[in-house]
Amino acid sequence: MTPMRTEVAIIGAGPSGLLLSHLLAHDGVESVVLETRSREYVESRIRAGILESSTVELFDAVGLGERLHREGSEHRGIYLQWPHERHHLDFLDLAGRSVWLYGQSEVQKDLGRAREAAGQEIHYEVSDTEVHDPGSDRPYVTYRDAEGNDSRVDADVIVGCDGSFGPSRAAVPDSARRTWERSYPHSWLGILADVAPSTDELIYAWHPDGFALHSMRTAHVSRFYLQVAPGTDLADWSDDRIWEALATRLGHGQDGWQLDPGPITDRSVLPMRSFVMEPMRYGRLFLAGDAAHIVPPTGAKGLNLAMADVALLAPALAALLRKKDPALADSYSDRALRRVWRCTHFSWWMTTMLHAGPDPFDTQLQLSQLRWVAGSRAGATGLAENYAGLPIG
Amino acid sequence: MTPMRTEVAIIGAGPSGLLLSHLLAHDGVESVVLETRSREYVESRIRAGILESSTVELFDAVGLGERLHREGSEHRGIYLQWPHERHHLDFLDLAGRSVWLYGQSEVQKDLGRAREAAGQEIHYEVSDTEVHDPGSDRPYVTYRDAEGNDSRVDADVIVGCDGSFGPSRAAVPDSARRTWERSYPHSWLGILADVAPSTDELIYAWHPDGFALHSMRTAHVSRFYLQVAPGTDLADWSDDRIWEALATRLGHGQDGWQLDPGPITDRSVLPMRSFVMEPMRYGRLFLAGDAAHIVPPTGAKGLNLAMADVALLAPALAALLRKKDPALADSYSDRALRRVWRCTHFSWWMTTMLHAGPDPFDTQLQLSQLRWVAGSRAGATGLAENYAGLPIG
Repeated sequence: MTPMRTEVAIIGAGPSGLLLSHLLAHDGVESVVLETRSREYVESRIRAGILESSTVELFDAVGLGERLHREGSEHRGIYLQWPHERHHLDFLDLAGRSVWLYGQSEVQKDLGRAREAAGQEIHYEVSDTEVHDPGSDRPYVTYRDAEGNDSRVDADVIVGCDGSFGPSRAAVPDSARRTWERSYPHSWLGILADVAPSTDELIYAWHPDGFALHSMRTAHVSRFYLQVAPGTDLADWSDDRIWEALATRLGHGQDGWQLDPGPITDRSVLPMRSFVMEPMRYGRLFLAGDAAHIVPPTGAKGLNLAMADVALLAPALAALLRKKDPALADSYSDRALRRVWRCTHFSWWMTTMLHAGPDPFDTQLQLSQLRWVAGSRAGATGLAENYAGLPIG
Repeated sequence: MTPMRTEVAIIGAGPSGLLLSHLLAHDGVESVVLETRSREYVESRIRAGILESSTVELFDAVGLGERLHREGSEHRGIYLQWPHERHHLDFLDLAGRSVWLYGQSEVQKDLGRAREAAGQEIHYEVSDTEVHDPGSDRPYVTYRDAEGNDSRVDADVIVGCDGSFGPSRAAVPDSARRTWERSYPHSWLGILADVAPSTDELIYAWHPDGFALHSMRTAHVSRFYLQVAPGTDLADWSDDRIWEALATRLGHGQDGWQLDPGPITDRSVLPMRSFVMEPMRYGRLFLAGDAAHIVPPTGAKGLNLAMADVALLAPALAALLRKKDPALADSYSDRALRRVWRCTHFSWWMTTMLHAGPDPFDTQLQLSQLRWVAGSRAGATGLAENYAGLPIG
């Protein structure tokens, strides 16, 4: 086994790993990316679909925004709804910023093509990835490559972009980190359907039966989510039951609004939790995105938060490796965590405001808060500025 | 026993009962007020001290604002604080409205004098007050007067302004009402001290040891509150312990700020809970203020909410009794409850944001929210418009 040598070993070829390699290359820093899945797999994962304006600006600034602007669509805001009332919150009017509908799988493809065109070294379908000596000046990563060969990358810095269950987070000793966690007593049943969306912008609906979200992928593919109990079995949710629940919770027939059903092409149940690890660094190992923090999907923060981490981390590593200036790298964790906690709070707030629960007092608090958010310019602006996203940095 | 006859029998001579009799008299409606305590007692009760701008406008409109403007003081806002940071929120700048510092005992005295000058019939120190036949057209109240005589008031309408533990709420059958309740795992230890306030406006302080509030009565009397565990025994809190806790939590010595201690003249422990009863009416019995709803003191809503109830109820009763028009009386409960739930939510929000608890995730949510409220104009305006109070009606 002949070790490879690079400046930055990036574990994970999801959006944050690929964006990091892209940004580092812009700054003349070399990297190698390792990924356990195949390229096809990562490019077809259906995940987040809403980009904050600062994420879009970042993509534009580094030549990644062309297809996004052509095929994505700008949303001025969202609809916020509860029985008998639907309100549009116009983020552009309220907070001067919009969001873009553009699927994570599309971001992934754009990044994959850009990195391929630049000759980026990415090893897909590796296994047994392990982080070694992150506390030393000579950290390295071992793995088995797609052909089954034991391999090694020596690097100046390792970055974990490998999500909740990857080896990076686990490589930080318990004594060197602090974690915060919250499990929510809800899950989301998510479906994709081959039908034109019944709305121009996302509908977030509170309903006594449970939260529902009407999202979309394209002009012909809709995405829906239903609040379900944790541990829900997909087998208990027939197509009919799903469409009936969506019609009820989204208010089919209310003020003439119609929900159009269609063939369901994908379905899954997602748990909901919050997780934050501090610091987002251990020696020469840095963490970004889900490797360091998880947010529940309400509020669409996960992907944007990962992009913001990487936007802070790339210049910090360039300064560290090119100029031997550790200042930005040393402050990376604190700077990233300010945004992480803002988004963690916002995601918790959206989640607790919108999901039905058993306590009737909580129900009244939710409705009172929804009325205030929809009816007060300050309330609406608070939601808008958090949803559309704060500037990076 | 010769029954008295009046148009409105008001149970309770606290601020809401006396204000109601005052407003009714303005509209030419006659009332009799019954109170279990002595006039001296109700005028010396130390309770709330912050009046919303709409409460002040209401007092001004009915000739009750003269001493308030002379002896009270207008506060532009509050300080919001956590360790190492203190931020001023300027309500006038943010929401166009201020609040007034003027104790409930002073409001009580002003109302008492105004009603006395008008010849209002008020029976103090009554006992065994009971509401009869509220569901009929001929309701009446029985009680024992201060001299021990069994007495009776027949009325067209009875109004319960008699707080949580009075007979009015209990006179509504369980089958005709719905209630919501929340107990908070905190109490407040409140003190009065003969010392000039160490601040020009109220300080709301989050601290890992627990919440603290620096309020004041006059230029020479300060009011302080400390978050303590429910069931706290005053005997466990020596003067020294109280001042040390206040100094720590309020940040004595931080940026040169000094907390001046002084002789403690009053101390008590207050539980914290939320309670709402719906509807605020049963037949010819109407409820106002604490008889229908309780808020925790964080956010200073209790007295203001009671005043707002009465401001809606007086014209509704005048229309009902003078013009035989029941429309406003019939909508009183719904209209009042909109504000009640807004304030219930706000008080819950302030309480949960500011009180220390055992869950480290909640602690981070609190700090993240405090930073956002203090740092975002939308966040600060949301607090300001709720604290300074929405218009009545």
